[in-house]
Amino acid sequence: MRRKLSYMDVDEAVKKVVTTVNIKPELEVVPIHEAYGRVLAKDVISGVDIPPSDISHFDGYAIRAEDAVHASVASPVSLKVIGRIYPGEKGERGVNPGEAYYITTGAFLPESADAVIMVEATAIVEKDVIKICKTMRPGENLIPAGEDVTKEKTVFKKGHVLRAQDVGFLAVLRIGKVKVFRKPVVAIISSGDELINHMEENEPLKTVNSHSLMVSKLIMEAGGVPVELGIVSDNLIKIREKIEGGLKKADIVLTIGGCSVGEKDFVLRAINLIGKPGVIVHGIKRKPGRVSGVGVINGKPIVMLPGLIQSTIIGFHVLALPLIRLASGLPATNLLLTFRAKIAEDVAFKKFIPFQQVTFVKMNREKDQVIAQPIIGESNLISIPVKASGFIVTPGHKPVIKKGEEVQVHLLPGLFSNHQ
Amino acid sequence: MRRKLSYMDVDEAVKKVVTTVNIKPELEVVPIHEAYGRVLAKDVISGVDIPPSDISHFDGYAIRAEDAVHASVASPVSLKVIGRIYPGEKGERGVNPGEAYYITTGAFLPESADAVIMVEATAIVEKDVIKICKTMRPGENLIPAGEDVTKEKTVFKKGHVLRAQDVGFLAVLRIGKVKVFRKPVVAIISSGDELINHMEENEPLKTVNSHSLMVSKLIMEAGGVPVELGIVSDNLIKIREKIEGGLKKADIVLTIGGCSVGEKDFVLRAINLIGKPGVIVHGIKRKPGRVSGVGVINGKPIVMLPGLIQSTIIGFHVLALPLIRLASGLPATNLLLTFRAKIAEDVAFKKFIPFQQVTFVKMNREKDQVIAQPIIGESNLISIPVKASGFIVTPGHKPVIKKGEEVQVHLLPGLFSNHQ
Repeated sequence: MRRKLSYMDVDEAVKKVVTTVNIKPELEVVPIHEAYGRVLAKDVISGVDIPPSDISHFDGYAIRAEDAVHASVASPVSLKVIGRIYPGEKGERGVNPGEAYYITTGAFLPESADAVIMVEATAIVEKDVIKICKTMRPGENLIPAGEDVTKEKTVFKKGHVLRAQDVGFLAVLRIGKVKVFRKPVVAIISSGDELINHMEENEPLKTVNSHSLMVSKLIMEAGGVPVELGIVSDNLIKIREKIEGGLKKADIVLTIGGCSVGEKDFVLRAINLIGKPGVIVHGIKRKPGRVSGVGVINGKPIVMLPGLIQSTIIGFHVLALPLIRLASGLPATNLLLTFRAKIAEDVAFKKFIPFQQVTFVKMNREKDQVIAQPIIGESNLISIPVKASGFIVTPGHKPVIKKGEEVQVHLLPGLFSNHQ
Repeated sequence: MRRKLSYMDVDEAVKKVVTTVNIKPELEVVPIHEAYGRVLAKDVISGVDIPPSDISHFDGYAIRAEDAVHASVASPVSLKVIGRIYPGEKGERGVNPGEAYYITTGAFLPESADAVIMVEATAIVEKDVIKICKTMRPGENLIPAGEDVTKEKTVFKKGHVLRAQDVGFLAVLRIGKVKVFRKPVVAIISSGDELINHMEENEPLKTVNSHSLMVSKLIMEAGGVPVELGIVSDNLIKIREKIEGGLKKADIVLTIGGCSVGEKDFVLRAINLIGKPGVIVHGIKRKPGRVSGVGVINGKPIVMLPGLIQSTIIGFHVLALPLIRLASGLPATNLLLTFRAKIAEDVAFKKFIPFQQVTFVKMNREKDQVIAQPIIGESNLISIPVKASGFIVTPGHKPVIKKGEEVQVHLLPGLFSNHQ
């Protein structure tokens, strides 16, 4: 007698999971040299003005504008050049009336100077004396202190992911450490009597535990710290023990395999034996991946990923990714990495027509267009995701995508390369 | 007397650089657990069939099709069930005429069996005896050996970047090690008297060497190994020594700052003092970034990046990225990470009109559309790239982009986050 799955709409399933779990990411302080890619746990506020003092926008002469306010071709003004100022310098003393400093682009204005006249607008009268033939106003050709960033300004919001330019920016602001969310630890358990851990084992009919290796990279790219807990055989007691071990070590547990409704599928029962509420989602209206599910024990999620590789990937994308994001201090969903593309050929769906249908695709560029080439094959074929770089999701009750239709290609970090 | 730059078209400059340098990436062998993100230096050929033997596509009974070739409702065939086979198993012995094995999805067919009849198409007559009422043909409901991958098939080409699914796939193929290109070492030298290495130094008017930190992350994301060599002052001899040191340690040297035509810009002269051919590109027809250049010494490139941050980034994208890619075993250019977007407002260009113009933009999603919000400001503002997530390049002689125009947004790995 087969048990039945209660298939849920994908959005509904994710919402139920997100509202049932109790995930409170912890905080830690890291030096900015190690903060690349981390999620800020606190707003970052500038403690300084950038630039810290007025700087020159050009190579020229720093002057007191009042000295040149009446300057003209008919009545030029002569100023004495008292020194040279380069970036990182401000001049040894202030500028007195009738004086100027030679100043280069990006250098700080000396005290009392309030304008810069470009080299091209001056003439050298004699050694250390220049002539100005145009009127100047205060503030001309300079970048005022704080133009770039003002002190007390919030430069990054909590939840921001630090990029290359951001860690550099923090250095400029002289912020040496930041408070970030601790990366969630995600345990991976592979279930199945057919699995072996190491390819060196002389078991030609067994399958190497390769999904765990793949999933560990997806976790890493999602911002988590993967911990591979290895294989457990198809045994209810052993699976239960393994999951309990995972719950002790990790913030999130992922199981791979054993979550359908066959006689050897013990993962659901094992979770329900551990505690409450137990399995809250089992079955999602998306294919492949439809037998994915989530259990919750004391607020901690256990994501049940199916064992066929395409299903493993889709289950991960739908149910594991939002949880890893939440546990990383990010919103559950992320829409950036989708591309609009035209589908290269017809795709027809024959089973589970009311479900969303996932099609793996390879993206190719043709001139300015992105073409999505569908990679079609049975769900057991492991080479399909290898031939693909992304996937599209077709709404339920749509049995065919016609060649040339516009589709949205999802890129799951880890499944595509930035380099190709 | 100012020296002049010889501005080159960007494509021409890149071509000149790529054809002048002599970069031969080295190879190394890595275990697949450490091969994620690496570039294959050799085609990978499967040594096995996947599946290694015929497997069942359903839960059912493995039979000899000839036993059921005349089966029908009127004349059913009874078979004796001699055992059960699960994934990773093949049955203890072959199937004799009149026998069947119960078999689950993904399990290997026993010897002599050549078809699977689905459970639903059979009836249990008595303990260990089933009845079949339909004719069967050889090969029915099974996945033949080699359906997924055949032995001797090239599964990955040289130059392929290994993704999560690829390292898993290698494990399935029982390929434990792969030959990849060694990651190129890229040295970073920051030049400028205004710089300090550490923000703890009590020098409020000096600038922390933040660009080196940013560039090191861009190098990492491009596939290189960054080595920060710190600061060198604006001194021809010292810059020359520093670059010579970088050339000894690294495959590529990047300098930041000191490459314009001012009195303190010594980098070009330093490179030309070291050897031949020296500087081969100085000035590109793209703004910001126009004073970028490349020198070559004994085939090894030194990329001269300008010191203003927007220029540093664009110089990196135009001239350093193709070289790091080449040294990684990849083609020099990469077009994947561009998005079509609509520009949110007019952008006007006033200087260097014949040049390509770069505009930093923030990408926002509005329904199905990507909107590029231009981030406008002077080239010295360090906060501009922090506010942006990508950039667009407008062709030369086009002084304005009109609101709503379609643009291509370039995403440089490191400058945007996969997570936001």
